[in-house]
Amino acid sequence: MRFSSPTSSDGVREQIFQLGDVPGVLWTPQDAAGPRPLILLGHGGGQHKMAPGVVFRAHRFVTELGVAAVAVDVPNHGDRIDERYDRIVAENRARVAAGEDLSSVVGSFQELAARQTVPEWRAVLDAVQELDHVGAGPVGYWGVSLGCGLGVPFVAAEPRVTAAVLGLGGAFGAAADLARRITVPVEFLVQWDDERVPRDRSLALFDALGSAEKTLHANPGEHGELPRHELDSATRFFARHLVQPG
Amino acid sequence: MRFSSPTSSDGVREQIFQLGDVPGVLWTPQDAAGPRPLILLGHGGGQHKMAPGVVFRAHRFVTELGVAAVAVDVPNHGDRIDERYDRIVAENRARVAAGEDLSSVVGSFQELAARQTVPEWRAVLDAVQELDHVGAGPVGYWGVSLGCGLGVPFVAAEPRVTAAVLGLGGAFGAAADLARRITVPVEFLVQWDDERVPRDRSLALFDALGSAEKTLHANPGEHGELPRHELDSATRFFARHLVQPG
Repeated sequence: MRFSSPTSSDGVREQIFQLGDVPGVLWTPQDAAGPRPLILLGHGGGQHKMAPGVVFRAHRFVTELGVAAVAVDVPNHGDRIDERYDRIVAENRARVAAGEDLSSVVGSFQELAARQTVPEWRAVLDAVQELDHVGAGPVGYWGVSLGCGLGVPFVAAEPRVTAAVLGLGGAFGAAADLARRITVPVEFLVQWDDERVPRDRSLALFDALGSAEKTLHANPGEHGELPRHELDSATRFFARHLVQPG
Repeated sequence: MRFSSPTSSDGVREQIFQLGDVPGVLWTPQDAAGPRPLILLGHGGGQHKMAPGVVFRAHRFVTELGVAAVAVDVPNHGDRIDERYDRIVAENRARVAAGEDLSSVVGSFQELAARQTVPEWRAVLDAVQELDHVGAGPVGYWGVSLGCGLGVPFVAAEPRVTAAVLGLGGAFGAAADLARRITVPVEFLVQWDDERVPRDRSLALFDALGSAEKTLHANPGEHGELPRHELDSATRFFARHLVQPG
């Protein structure tokens, strides 16, 4: 794990890193010492680890909760050019053009990508939790849209994750089966007028979650119009389940 | 409007009152002086103005938000024996026994009751807002189940209401048409495994709400199993829209 020089702003220390092929960024409280909870943030499709929404949420979690936050580029996003994925994306466009259902194409793409991202993200947890100012505390996951499509298999596979905010995703491909394996508390976000994810598929994914404690939050608006008060809610959700559990 | 002697506990002053035929209770901060927002709480079916859940929520709103809270008995509930309603309830039981859909019977009953409760509740607002320690501030409404069935027509009719928490109710009878007239922010609670309100009718009522800002919160569990964290959320919702609007 190689780190660039850290920078700081608004009480948050930011460290860009590279772990094998995976470029990432770690945010911690300015003067962090000792172990603390860690939140992994998954970015959306076409975005990257430093997308404004990711950075904004990471800063909020770090400053309000005192946790560490980490984000990495998904293959073929951000700093990771990957021609294999370009080829798959081109093939998928052709499948949709030929009349195949967009949702099922997206579902199969996310399944393919998750085979790579799940082990990558677990390796990132291993590495980051060895740092003194992160340590082996409980782990939360925040991810919507692509971050939900990749987050569901990750949360299902990774026992260190004890709470997750997911959403803007649907029961496509293997997602519902994987969601049934999730048993940690989940806050699940739905945009009521989502033009990309049919409402019934969103509700079906929430329904499939195996968690005894799960809350669906639905708001009017399209896929990209999550209201700001949902970040307040996510912050309190992590405070309840990650910082002061029990 | 006649008041009994006030009592106080935990920083909350409680005044039982009678306004015409309507028995009610007003809660205010111990040392309240001057105008403040007011939250009207609707109770559930078979409950009354002093049901533990109503009192608990009222105390929470008063102590955390500094607002006034008021609740009244619905006809044939609490201190209000009303033989006409007994007769209707008996008739409704017979209709259900004869195979009529329970939801439609409940819907028509709530429509009938709302013809009486909407003007009663508006008169209570008039009277309570004349008190110096309540005054003419913005009004919130909290009510689920029967409190939603009667709350939807009330919020639709009463322009002083600027924010409402509703839920555990469905698009029965005229409810959807009335919901379309509601334009204030709404937090809408759904129990995902509600044995009394079919899920699709709950979602249809949320869908019908005319509010630009509305949030659906769905949690696992039956009709009576609202999780405690939803009261935290309702308190913050009223803080946002009633106490510090804009």
